[in-house]
Amino acid sequence: MNEQEKERFTKQIEFLVEMDKMKNIRRMTRVLHEDRAENDAEHAWHLAMLALVLSEYANEPVDLKTVLATVLIHDVVEIDAGDTYAYDTEGYKTKEAREKQAADRLFGMLPEDQGTYLRRLWDEFEAQSTPEARFADSLDRVQPLLLNYCKHGETWVQNGIRHEQVTARNQKTYEGSKVLGDLAMELIRRATEEGLLK
Amino acid sequence: MNEQEKERFTKQIEFLVEMDKMKNIRRMTRVLHEDRAENDAEHAWHLAMLALVLSEYANEPVDLKTVLATVLIHDVVEIDAGDTYAYDTEGYKTKEAREKQAADRLFGMLPEDQGTYLRRLWDEFEAQSTPEARFADSLDRVQPLLLNYCKHGETWVQNGIRHEQVTARNQKTYEGSKVLGDLAMELIRRATEEGLLK
Repeated sequence: MNEQEKERFTKQIEFLVEMDKMKNIRRMTRVLHEDRAENDAEHAWHLAMLALVLSEYANEPVDLKTVLATVLIHDVVEIDAGDTYAYDTEGYKTKEAREKQAADRLFGMLPEDQGTYLRRLWDEFEAQSTPEARFADSLDRVQPLLLNYCKHGETWVQNGIRHEQVTARNQKTYEGSKVLGDLAMELIRRATEEGLLK
Repeated sequence: MNEQEKERFTKQIEFLVEMDKMKNIRRMTRVLHEDRAENDAEHAWHLAMLALVLSEYANEPVDLKTVLATVLIHDVVEIDAGDTYAYDTEGYKTKEAREKQAADRLFGMLPEDQGTYLRRLWDEFEAQSTPEARFADSLDRVQPLLLNYCKHGETWVQNGIRHEQVTARNQKTYEGSKVLGDLAMELIRRATEEGLLK
């Protein structure tokens, strides 16, 4: 390796070490078989598994590699900006500015070509401007719903979430996948029936 | 959806719910910024991030989508078979049989086309029979080494691991990536110098 190649490799390794912090960021969602919150690294892995298995249900044809890369990186800005709970209206007011700054720093750690590529995927995810971004977003909405339902609505009950809130949030699930939108509505219907959602 | 489609979708969702158990399987490796073991879901996500950023260093050209799918699923058999520590020679005697049985059950939960595809990727990973499998294996060897080194050799010191053991294990890193093999040797050299490896 010459000096330039060494510098490139060092940036890549430093970025990947920084990424370990994703394992510290707790979400509101609980894991199914232990009494603890899910963290961002686990969540991103789970979304990637959903992408592998459910891509046939995307509304438009999607490039699976792009969907995988998108879900793998979609939350890395939370290393600096923290997780904002889906129903935290105050937190949402500053979310965009906090996350943009985080994206500048984190994707900026990489060699320029790679930083630009992953930043573009993140921008597209935020803007919901491609079929892959819209499908990734559907997965990101349906995965916590599925876990919450399987865990008897634990976080809904604790936070007094109403079925109208979950329904409103999951209207957007339809934009990436009609099938997953229908799944979301079916889970909400059952959860409401079972008293897990107010 | 007709009945057949519904059955397919139900199998997929049941498999994805079962996958949540990956979040419970503890590895020997520690996460960097908390005092706890890494779990299989976090590990697989971290490998996928390595794959995204480091694929240019594969010895042979690799299909990134295949590498990503491989690292995402490479440890799911541990849901039934448990994690076998890299330096546990007793555990390694029964590892293959335990993991084959787990693969039958877990990939068997999916619709046949998808189960066959992911089982093939897992078999190729185990047999190290494709460039993608060999590169995925290099990532799987170098990631815990990198974390261990960054965490001052915690698990090496606790388990009395010798530098010859880590060196032997990481000879195979060269089969998927010369650059990552060199990184492994450099980290082992530094760790030995710093007294983190006996």
